[in-house]
Amino acid sequence: MQEVIERVLPRIVPLPEEEAELREVEKALIARVDEAARLHDRRLYSRLLGSASRGTWLRYEKDLDVFIFFPEEYTKQEMERVVSSIASEVLVEVQKRYAEHPYVRGRFMGYEVELVPCYAIREPSQIRSAVDRTPFHNDYVMGRIGGLENEVRLLKQFLRGIGCYGAEAKVEGFSGYLCELLVLRFGSFQRVLQSAATWKPGVVLALGEVEERAARRRFSSPLIFIDPVDENRNVAGALSLQRFSEFVYASKCFLREPAIEYFFPPPRRVSREELLGALSSRGTALVGVRFEAPDVVEDVLYPQLRKAHRLLRRQLEAGGFRVLGGTVHAGRNCHLVFELLESVLPAARLHLGPPVNSSHEERFLGKYREELSRPFILNGRWAVFTKRRHGSAAELLRDFLSGGELHSRGVPKHLAMSIQEHGFEVVEGEGCLEEEALLSVAEYLLPLFPWERGSG
Amino acid sequence: MQEVIERVLPRIVPLPEEEAELREVEKALIARVDEAARLHDRRLYSRLLGSASRGTWLRYEKDLDVFIFFPEEYTKQEMERVVSSIASEVLVEVQKRYAEHPYVRGRFMGYEVELVPCYAIREPSQIRSAVDRTPFHNDYVMGRIGGLENEVRLLKQFLRGIGCYGAEAKVEGFSGYLCELLVLRFGSFQRVLQSAATWKPGVVLALGEVEERAARRRFSSPLIFIDPVDENRNVAGALSLQRFSEFVYASKCFLREPAIEYFFPPPRRVSREELLGALSSRGTALVGVRFEAPDVVEDVLYPQLRKAHRLLRRQLEAGGFRVLGGTVHAGRNCHLVFELLESVLPAARLHLGPPVNSSHEERFLGKYREELSRPFILNGRWAVFTKRRHGSAAELLRDFLSGGELHSRGVPKHLAMSIQEHGFEVVEGEGCLEEEALLSVAEYLLPLFPWERGSG
Repeated sequence: MQEVIERVLPRIVPLPEEEAELREVEKALIARVDEAARLHDRRLYSRLLGSASRGTWLRYEKDLDVFIFFPEEYTKQEMERVVSSIASEVLVEVQKRYAEHPYVRGRFMGYEVELVPCYAIREPSQIRSAVDRTPFHNDYVMGRIGGLENEVRLLKQFLRGIGCYGAEAKVEGFSGYLCELLVLRFGSFQRVLQSAATWKPGVVLALGEVEERAARRRFSSPLIFIDPVDENRNVAGALSLQRFSEFVYASKCFLREPAIEYFFPPPRRVSREELLGALSSRGTALVGVRFEAPDVVEDVLYPQLRKAHRLLRRQLEAGGFRVLGGTVHAGRNCHLVFELLESVLPAARLHLGPPVNSSHEERFLGKYREELSRPFILNGRWAVFTKRRHGSAAELLRDFLSGGELHSRGVPKHLAMSIQEHGFEVVEGEGCLEEEALLSVAEYLLPLFPWERGSG
Repeated sequence: MQEVIERVLPRIVPLPEEEAELREVEKALIARVDEAARLHDRRLYSRLLGSASRGTWLRYEKDLDVFIFFPEEYTKQEMERVVSSIASEVLVEVQKRYAEHPYVRGRFMGYEVELVPCYAIREPSQIRSAVDRTPFHNDYVMGRIGGLENEVRLLKQFLRGIGCYGAEAKVEGFSGYLCELLVLRFGSFQRVLQSAATWKPGVVLALGEVEERAARRRFSSPLIFIDPVDENRNVAGALSLQRFSEFVYASKCFLREPAIEYFFPPPRRVSREELLGALSSRGTALVGVRFEAPDVVEDVLYPQLRKAHRLLRRQLEAGGFRVLGGTVHAGRNCHLVFELLESVLPAARLHLGPPVNSSHEERFLGKYREELSRPFILNGRWAVFTKRRHGSAAELLRDFLSGGELHSRGVPKHLAMSIQEHGFEVVEGEGCLEEEALLSVAEYLLPLFPWERGSG
């Protein structure tokens, strides 16, 4: 264990000269931002928050999160306008992004910078959106993390290596703040893993006292970590059961047999041929939908893609096609891929009608006079063999997505708009194995834990 | 309506000279049976029971049911021996049969005769098996049916025409006694149908007072007719929901548009070509099991065939094959036929395992190390893509029926014995359309009410 950690640390802990450089850049950046901000309103000021300020950033990360504090009378729109204007003066390569809150990205002396507007608030209970809580998180951690920074870095890198780092929608994993709290709670990287190896969904953690049952009633995620600055918030609220379970299992495996691959897994390499081979030995059918990715942040896009995947899966299943599983991928295009037990189905379908002698009998008999069979009685109910509406899964998907009014039929908004504006394509078999989606399809068809890639 | 009835009556009401002949034959038969019986035991005597005695037999039926009455100290075995001996003296072409009770069939002066042993009992409450109740039924009906015999004949012939006549297991329809009670209850053939046209499952009928709710609690068949000689018995207990519903619907149709086809439907004609055409437009797959019919009465055979059909259907469905329906047929061979949405399935199957970090985790991971995929985590549980055990329905059926110990695995006794002794064959597609089973398969694939055959 110690040997593995010794090999990891140099790759994630900044050298003293690197840290000094970051502090220089920070100083220059805050000065420039404050200067620009005060031109708008003398009450505005900025602070570096996040891992760079807390001393828990990873060596190779060059990210600086600068929060600009506004008096409470500012509206969101006004803050957005001011921050954009500051960014255009201070940063290069500026991009506006929208998540729960608008913010601006850009570059400054080689560093990735995020400029985030927030309200200057005295008490965490008065916050108006999630970003207002960040200053309090910073204050909480800064006062306690001293001496444990590298334990946090080890945990972050471990989580990144196993694919569980980041609370963003694409990952649904562990946030940096959650890593810091876990290290504060258990005292070291190793002790966090020792605890995690025993977790089952429903774990409740806190710094200080906590009523486990009450917490479980209030929050429904697999891990509940009560925020020390706000007892009504679960810091692990964005963690999915999938990522939770992967972390638990990875912790067990790592403790049993430590290896550097958990921190730095080899990249997965996969070829079309390998996937075609897997498909042929499975005997199943792939069908996919492809359309131009809408221009929205991943935090908006991924939930929409997953929702669309569930929707189309239900449509396929309602049409009689059995879906074994599938995956989504977002690149230049969006890809929704389904693996089916059958991509075509016979025409005949048993259609059950009302009970014999019920009030709906006449209507049923009038409507289904002559289908694949005449109406007949099956255990007291009317029945008829009718023709299936869609004989192939591809046809069903095409029909569903061509219909217009996609949003009102359950397709998430941005996807519906992209499909209606730019169209879509239904692809089958090999057609689903497009280069940009290849790895996602591989992760579905031939799942492999990142740390096992060497042996895969 | 009257016109149709006028055309039906001559075909079902015996001419006076035919009735006279029957009475002559009855007299001679009872005399011979009594003579032979008294040689065994002076206390034995016989009576003609059933429709011939009650005056409600159909013209073309030449059946005589003779009951031989024994003192109560006789055992079943002794009665069986005595009745066999009497039969061999009086009848020709004698056959022993076993249902709930042993009885003997044979011929006498051109008539089909059944010799049935029963106990001479004073009160219906003391009966020891169903046949002991028949004399009381006879007494009840004989005292009341006078003048309504032809109404009973019309109802019986109507039920026979629509395929609902007979309480035997093959039909699960209306017994002759139930027909008599229905006519007594409603007063005429037409009024029985007028009532039936309004029935829904759960009808309670009786001659005299009846507590409907109590009756429904005690009996669970679609029609409950309290036996006037035994209030603890439902005369319609053997009636299936299928035959009940068919009678209800036929009654409605006949009253709307009376036609002689309800009484005398044209025989159904069907060709292999027609069925092959139907199959091809359905696109489905037929698979069947064929084996030598065991030598048991139909009342034993049919329930076993239906049970075996349900059992194999469940096996197919557990193997992933979707069964649309099917049928059974008993001839020289027994045929169990299934219509499937798919007769072959791809190899891949999603096998769900225990939750991550549960006590069964180790065992699962050890067992499914390398299947079609490695084990992976799916929403908190272990999962793996494994190979399906049976890729084809025919293979699954062959495997199940080859296993031995068929009876202990749910195959009814007489079928299990026949299969283990003489073997079985699994047939597919055209192979299921054997001549002797053709009509049964047609009734399933292209259902057609008997009275609609002219237009079919």
